[in-house]
Amino acid sequence: MKTEPTTAVLKQIGVVHSPYSEKKDAPFQGRHEMKEATIELFEAYEPGLLDIESCTHLHVLYWQDKGDRTILQTKTPWGPDIHGVFCTRSPNRPNLIGMCVVDFLERNGRFLKVRGLDALDGSSLIDIKPYSPAIDSFPDARIGWCKEGK
Amino acid sequence: MKTEPTTAVLKQIGVVHSPYSEKKDAPFQGRHEMKEATIELFEAYEPGLLDIESCTHLHVLYWQDKGDRTILQTKTPWGPDIHGVFCTRSPNRPNLIGMCVVDFLERNGRFLKVRGLDALDGSSLIDIKPYSPAIDSFPDARIGWCKEGK
Repeated sequence: MKTEPTTAVLKQIGVVHSPYSEKKDAPFQGRHEMKEATIELFEAYEPGLLDIESCTHLHVLYWQDKGDRTILQTKTPWGPDIHGVFCTRSPNRPNLIGMCVVDFLERNGRFLKVRGLDALDGSSLIDIKPYSPAIDSFPDARIGWCKEGK
Repeated sequence: MKTEPTTAVLKQIGVVHSPYSEKKDAPFQGRHEMKEATIELFEAYEPGLLDIESCTHLHVLYWQDKGDRTILQTKTPWGPDIHGVFCTRSPNRPNLIGMCVVDFLERNGRFLKVRGLDALDGSSLIDIKPYSPAIDSFPDARIGWCKEGK
């Protein structure tokens, strides 16, 4: 059976306010610089935040609109070698979804203060998911091509 | 400054072949049933897999097209209470992106055998990212509304 590729439309549900205004300012990973950022959810989606205060960590999904959708192999900050984008966290990839685990610090209405987000200021928010250690935490995982394995 | 919501178009880059052909068959989380599934990447994207064999775990992002985009609050399998969708992993949410950490078992060309994926058979693949324990593993994280905290 031949499968025809399809497309889907993402809706922006909010905006990231971060200390990183340009690509050169942003850390390779937000985790390596523990700066604070604010996630603003648009009013229409605020009911979706019910009970989010009870989460210590969140997955933040955003749109990396400065990325290049045509790149399939790339260098990384971790060495001189070329790798496929699907084994790197490069913003350049067929679908420009950025994903980052953040510490959740504080909620003020539809504004969430977080720490560890690597998104550029003004990035479009597309989803928030709770971080569940039961299904998301694998401390023994390894990325073999990376010298430190992680 | 008023921010106007924008949209972005996701491209399907492959297809999931899983043992779950209907919504009622799929586990709440793939991690709770360790069945095997195969991720098929379309030919055009195969160069993006270079070195992926060196990863032990992958984040798989797929499109949950059976989800309801209008739902903002929901019950969960874990209790009778209603929660905002952004603190649940419900497939019902404004953007139907499903995300699952899987064990990576084997690569055969553009086909990846994995374990622990909760996607329905035929789901559209939209991204693969390497799992990095340095930035993705937080064993002490908690979801407070959930009885077991995780």
